[in-house]
Amino acid sequence: MSEPISLTAALASFDALWSPRIVTSVNDYDVRIAKVRGEYVWHTHDDTDEFFLVLDGELQIALRDSADEERVVALARGDLFTVPRGVAHKPMSPGGAAILMFEPTGTLTVGDRHDDVPDHVDATTGHRL
Amino acid sequence: MSEPISLTAALASFDALWSPRIVTSVNDYDVRIAKVRGEYVWHTHDDTDEFFLVLDGELQIALRDSADEERVVALARGDLFTVPRGVAHKPMSPGGAAILMFEPTGTLTVGDRHDDVPDHVDATTGHRL
Repeated sequence: MSEPISLTAALASFDALWSPRIVTSVNDYDVRIAKVRGEYVWHTHDDTDEFFLVLDGELQIALRDSADEERVVALARGDLFTVPRGVAHKPMSPGGAAILMFEPTGTLTVGDRHDDVPDHVDATTGHRL
Repeated sequence: MSEPISLTAALASFDALWSPRIVTSVNDYDVRIAKVRGEYVWHTHDDTDEFFLVLDGELQIALRDSADEERVVALARGDLFTVPRGVAHKPMSPGGAAILMFEPTGTLTVGDRHDDVPDHVDATTGHRL
């Protein structure tokens, strides 16, 4: 990267939901942004934590612990949360949100284990801007 | 981390300048936030890239390339930039800024090589919130 990237401009450059764009890489990690609305799919990353920062709107993340108990964390704009590796989770945003994620390059959006992937979910390791 | 963290609340919890706080960890990386004002010190991370996102205010980063040519990139709120490993850089913010950084846990704020560290610079691997 030779010039700074504006998150506002980057977010304005695409409309697809649940389809992350890679805005920069940091060693062998990617910084991704996504627009989301509605419900994602339950999935688990066995080998990596996953960082979320809400840039706009509100995001809920349903989490399932080892005893299969569910809880939901609610993130407003400017809130961040790291989902630990091995924890099943399902991001949701009834009203829509823009989010930033940080995770190892090559991490699949639907994780290593997941429910059936609905049509509106893009199973990807991220697209270039 | 069991609950989301508000960047606004996290930033309100400290006043020290050039003294990053670790807000969460992602595998063996830390997410740090810092308040900055004035000039930092020229330094180089030999083995890691360093990610900057401006949360508030404006940040300039002076960069020195392999031919010792200097240039400055200017980041407004919502702009991001990754300084590649091995590139000498000096963050600056005449008017003050709040920034978020991603880098490997244990990365020293003044890098592996640096000019004399002035009193206002905290040479640290980051403090807990």
